[in-house]
Order: sequence, then C-alpha cells, then structure tokens
Amino acid sequence: MEEKNQTNAERALEMHRIWNGKLETTAKSKVNSREDLAIAYTPGVAEPCKVIAKDREAAYTYTMKANTVAVISDGSAVLGLGNIGAYAAMPVMEGKCVLFKEFGNVNAVPICLDTQDTEEIISTIQNIAPAYGGINLEDIAAPRCFEIEERLKEMLDIPVFHDDQHGTAIVVLAGIINGLRITGKKKEDCRVVVNGAGSAGVAITKLLLTYGFAHVTMCDRDGIIGRDYPNLNWMQQKMTEVTNLENQRGTLADALQGADIFVGVSAPNIVTPEMVASMNRDSILFAMANPVPEIMPDVAKSAGARIVGTGRSDFPNQVNNVVAFPGIFKGALEGRAAQITEEMKLAAAEAIAGLVSDEQLCDDFIMPEPFDPRVADVVSRAVKSHIVR
Amino acid sequence: MEEKNQTNAERALEMHRIWNGKLETTAKSKVNSREDLAIAYTPGVAEPCKVIAKDREAAYTYTMKANTVAVISDGSAVLGLGNIGAYAAMPVMEGKCVLFKEFGNVNAVPICLDTQDTEEIISTIQNIAPAYGGINLEDIAAPRCFEIEERLKEMLDIPVFHDDQHGTAIVVLAGIINGLRITGKKKEDCRVVVNGAGSAGVAITKLLLTYGFAHVTMCDRDGIIGRDYPNLNWMQQKMTEVTNLENQRGTLADALQGADIFVGVSAPNIVTPEMVASMNRDSILFAMANPVPEIMPDVAKSAGARIVGTGRSDFPNQVNNVVAFPGIFKGALEGRAAQITEEMKLAAAEAIAGLVSDEQLCDDFIMPEPFDPRVADVVSRAVKSHIVR
Repeated sequence: MEEKNQTNAERALEMHRIWNGKLETTAKSKVNSREDLAIAYTPGVAEPCKVIAKDREAAYTYTMKANTVAVISDGSAVLGLGNIGAYAAMPVMEGKCVLFKEFGNVNAVPICLDTQDTEEIISTIQNIAPAYGGINLEDIAAPRCFEIEERLKEMLDIPVFHDDQHGTAIVVLAGIINGLRITGKKKEDCRVVVNGAGSAGVAITKLLLTYGFAHVTMCDRDGIIGRDYPNLNWMQQKMTEVTNLENQRGTLADALQGADIFVGVSAPNIVTPEMVASMNRDSILFAMANPVPEIMPDVAKSAGARIVGTGRSDFPNQVNNVVAFPGIFKGALEGRAAQITEEMKLAAAEAIAGLVSDEQLCDDFIMPEPFDPRVADVVSRAVKSHIVR
Repeated sequence: MEEKNQTNAERALEMHRIWNGKLETTAKSKVNSREDLAIAYTPGVAEPCKVIAKDREAAYTYTMKANTVAVISDGSAVLGLGNIGAYAAMPVMEGKCVLFKEFGNVNAVPICLDTQDTEEIISTIQNIAPAYGGINLEDIAAPRCFEIEERLKEMLDIPVFHDDQHGTAIVVLAGIINGLRITGKKKEDCRVVVNGAGSAGVAITKLLLTYGFAHVTMCDRDGIIGRDYPNLNWMQQKMTEVTNLENQRGTLADALQGADIFVGVSAPNIVTPEMVASMNRDSILFAMANPVPEIMPDVAKSAGARIVGTGRSDFPNQVNNVVAFPGIFKGALEGRAAQITEEMKLAAAEAIAGLVSDEQLCDDFIMPEPFDPRVADVVSRAVKSHIVR
C-alpha cells in the first residue's frame, strides 16, 4: 500500500510536470486570414460590443459568458492540505476546471486569490464577475466561506455555488435517498448524526433538513453541538436553532446511540466498532474523511452497519462531487439561472439517486459511477426543470 | 463601401452568435478512468500542491501559470467605442485572447472588471495575479491606465503590459526604423510630431525618446502641448519635461512645419494636404485613427508624403499590434521575465523591423505581414535575449 502510494504520488508529480498546466485555452474562431481577423477582431468585433452595450443580456449570446464558470479559491482549505495559499492551490483548481469541461462540457477557468480577507475576496469576485456565467467557490475555509457565498449571492445575478458545501451535500443526500430505498426507513423518523461542523458538515445538515429530515445532530471535536458548546462560530451558532432540538449533550458516541445515519466529514478512525454497534438496525454510514475514513468499511460492516460509503474510489459507494457540480452548472448555465436554489439542489440529489435502478440498487451500489455518461445530462435536466423566473 | 461594411458588420454579428464565445478551455489532462482521476485530481494532485507550497516558483513547472496571460479591461476605452463597460468589452478581450493563442501559442483568459475605480482595479488585479504568468492590460482609459500599470509593475513579480500603450509604440517604432532605413535620415536629427496625448500617444513618445529621437512634439485637441497647455493630466504634464523642448506654441499645423515624421493616434481627417506639404522632404506619416485615418494615404502622398502607414488592413503599411504582443509575452513567459523592460521593447521593435529584408523594403512595404509565420518567434527570441536577472 505504502509502495503503491509512493508510485502514484511520483507519477502524479511527473504528469503535472509534463502537462505544465492541465488546462489550455483554445480558439473557436480561427484567424487564418485578414478576413478572419476582420470578423473575429477589428473592425467586426465592434458589432457584438455595441449590441451588448445596449443590452447586457446579449453577453450570453455573443460571448463565452454563456458557458463559462470561474473556479475560485483563496487557498485556505485545500483538500486535506489546509491553508497552503493561492499559488499551491492552483493544481487543484485547474483539476476542477478539467472536470467541469470533461464531465459537463462547461468551460472553466481557475482563479486563485492572493488574499484571505473576506471583504477583499468579495469585492474581487464582484469585480471580475462579468466574464462568467457562474462562480464556483472552492476550498475556502469556514466560517469565511459562508459569508462570502451569502453576500455574493445577493450581489451578483449569476449563480454562486461553494462546491465543498453544496456539491458534497447533494451527493451525500443522493446516497442517503438510496439508503432509504434499501432500508425502507422514513426520513421523518431517522436520527442523523453529522460529525464535523465545517463547510461540508453545515451544508449537509442544512440540505438534509430541507429535504425533510427532522432529527439531525451535529458533532465536532468537543462532542455534540448544542447551545452550550464552546467557541461556536456564527454559523454553528445558527445551526443550534435547527439541530439537536432536545439539546442533548455528550460525545459522538452518545450521539450515535440509536442513530440511523452517520455522516462524517471529520477525521480518520474516530468511529469505533462499539459506536456502530450502538446504532439502530440497518444503519447507514458515510465516512468521508480522506484518505483514511472515520471507520474502515469492513470494520463498520462487521460491527453491524448495513450500508457504508466513503470518499475513496477503491471502496464501494464513493461519495464523489464529480457526479454533481458539472451537471449542476451545466443546467444552471443552459437555463440561465440567476441562483442555484434549494429546489435545484434537491432535484439534483434525486436525479443522481435515480440513476441507480431498482435492479442495480444494493448495499454496495447506491451511487452512480462518476464515469456513467448519463450523469451530467440527467443532473442538468433536473436542475433546469427547477429554475424559477 | 457602405454596403460592404454593412455586410461585414452583419457577418461579424452572426459569427459571434454562432461561436457563442470565441474561446474555450480544453483539458490537456484527460480523465477517462478512475486512474486518470487519481493522477489529475485527488489524491495525486496533492503532490504538486505540496511542492508549490514549499517553493512558489514551482508553479511555473506544475501549473498553467507558465504559459497563461490575463487580458484585463475595465471597458473604459474600448476600440473606437469608448466607455462601453465590462460586459460590452468582452468580445474584444476574447478576440485578444484568441490572437494570443493563434499567433503566439500563449494561453490567455479575458477578465472584464465591473469597476472603473483605480484603487479597486489595482487591488483586484493584485488579488487574482497568482494564476497568471503575465498581465495584459487592455482598453483602459488614460490617465488611469498609467497609474494602474506603474503601480502593478511595482507590486507584482510578473510582467504587466498595457498593450494600447506599449504594443502600439513598439509597432510604430518598428515602422519608423524601417522608414529611416528607406529615407536615410538620422533619428537624432528628425523632428517628430505625435498627435493625440492619450495612452498610445504618450507611450509612443516615450519609446521614441528612449530609442534616441531628440525632437518630439506632442499635440492634442488644443494644439501643441507645452507647459501652458490647458488642463494637462499628470502624465501629460510629465511629458512636457521631455518633449517640445523649445516650448513651441501653436496648432498641429504649426508643429508639422518642417517635421519629418507624423504619428497620429487621434481623429479622422484632421491632417490636411497643406500640412503635409509643409513637412520636410521624405516625410513619414502614421495616420492611425480608425477606421478613418487622420489623412487618407493617397491624399497624403499627393501632397508630398513619402511613406504612409495606417491602422487599416486595406492600405499598405498596416500598424497592427498583433505583430508585437503575442511574441512579446511568449518571450517574457518563456524567459520568465519579471518585467517587460524598455530594452525588451526596443529589441522587439528592431526584430519586427528586421523581418522586412532589404530586398522587400520599399515605401509601401515597411511592416511584416501579421500572418508572417516568423513574427512571434523572432520577437520572442529578441525579447528573451534582453531579459536581465
């Protein structure tokens, strides 16, 4: 395992060196003659400029805004690497742009911000927005990410979507929907524990509540989050109004007793077999710490778990945002949505879940494959059908 | 003529509608399998991130920064259209990016700023700089453009180049160098008149002085610019220290009496045959107002001009920035220049001029063709050979 990882790491580094940038720009308008130049550049280019100057909406007809997303990070919470800054975040943002294009046929450009100041981030993104049809925020630390997204959503007339929050939440919900299909449990009755109160944990909790789960408890390093939990940030504070309604106190182990669903976006190996054994029958676990999950799938299953998903591609039921974000932006751009609403997120989750047929559905197959060629189109159509004007 | 223009305009609009964006992003790293995904994205992507986190320079090895320019405008001085704003500027910036790629094989992304505030423009560009190997400023109004460029050059460790200024200046200088080859005049003895004291006029004047011209007079709407000229902006004020050293007063007509070279970046039809006739023998005129020049070439020639260049492709001696900026950035990126210096600009101008052989050189052929396949490489090599570390 160690040796194979070493090899993968070396190969990844070598390939990145060979690529020298995973993305390039390509001209759709070729310029092989003076005539071409006169159409694509001066003097012809003045015509679409004049039309857009009169009607800003025409930018969607005459420019790449129609099908281009900016993938923006401040480098403050990159993968499992933490606050590595704008320069070091580039390979991830380029990779994300590659996935946008390859999976959703959406153009995407990486933008790495040399500031981690909330106000500067907001004003910078506001200032560069005109060229893009959507903004995908990426790997920005909590709680800053919440304010940045909320404020930009109010300011801009294009979708702003923090994928670490909502992409993850949508895919987790899709998995849970299929988990309920298998176990026959009702969402209203399920007790859900979300461990990790950062950007993903908060967004997952919110989306589960919106979907109709009634009993969600969040935990973080110091156990169950309630009104007495020490040092809550403003968003976690807000979450205490809608979660853990009995105001339970205690540890993660206490929270898991009798729970039906565990969602971990936290740290390796913090769920024990005993904790799993204390959960309700037919328990569902999403142990998404990467690369080492909160509990290994075989251990969880031996302890009584029925369905286990992780973030890894080498175990069944991988929770992978790539089944969500390309199709979500594809749909939002094609339908020219001004926002990505809760309804669109729920529709995306249901569409992803629906890609697993009754025949395929089983404990070890609750998620469509990332390379399932139907995914982006199905998600895109679901999102488009929920655009409200 | 009118009918043909109509057709060109209509065709340009139709083609822009069909393209729906003249640029797209393309993945160099394909992701067709889980293995591909593990190399280009998680977990493999962590490796180049970690290397760059330790050594920022490694971004040039592992990311598209090595070969990517941002083409940035605030939409305040777009083509001949004026202050049409960020949205309407997009077709021009996309077109510029197309030219970067097609002529110089340099990746370029358009960024249109939804602000025209100098401080906001500077901080926004500073914040988004990490992803790029260079910044091409475009169509930003004077005198704001001077301060923005100067401040960013001090702040950033990548080249910042306002093409309306320096690209134009370099190509004009190339033409003048070849004009002197033909006429045998010496730069020290020539009297030069630059009409139009905006971004291009100022930059042309500066570069001519750097090259070794001693007698340059600038004019603007109210005639010859000197210390008494009304309402000079700070840059024009500064230019009075190095131009019009005899502090001549009067009109453009006064300035042109006995002049050897006229460079117009001003307005249509403002140079009369009488003014041309009053110039020195073997006069050289660059009448670059677009689409209607300061004087039509045939009129200027009838009045005694020897060499006439314009901005138009349907007359001889087109002054077209496309022979400069792709090669300049190609060279600066390949040589990883921190700045584009005066030496690099002069070298670029000489390289462009040198592409016209002694055999080709004549009154109606002083500029290489924009589609001459040698241009970008020759300019790039010239620029690279003048990078100082």
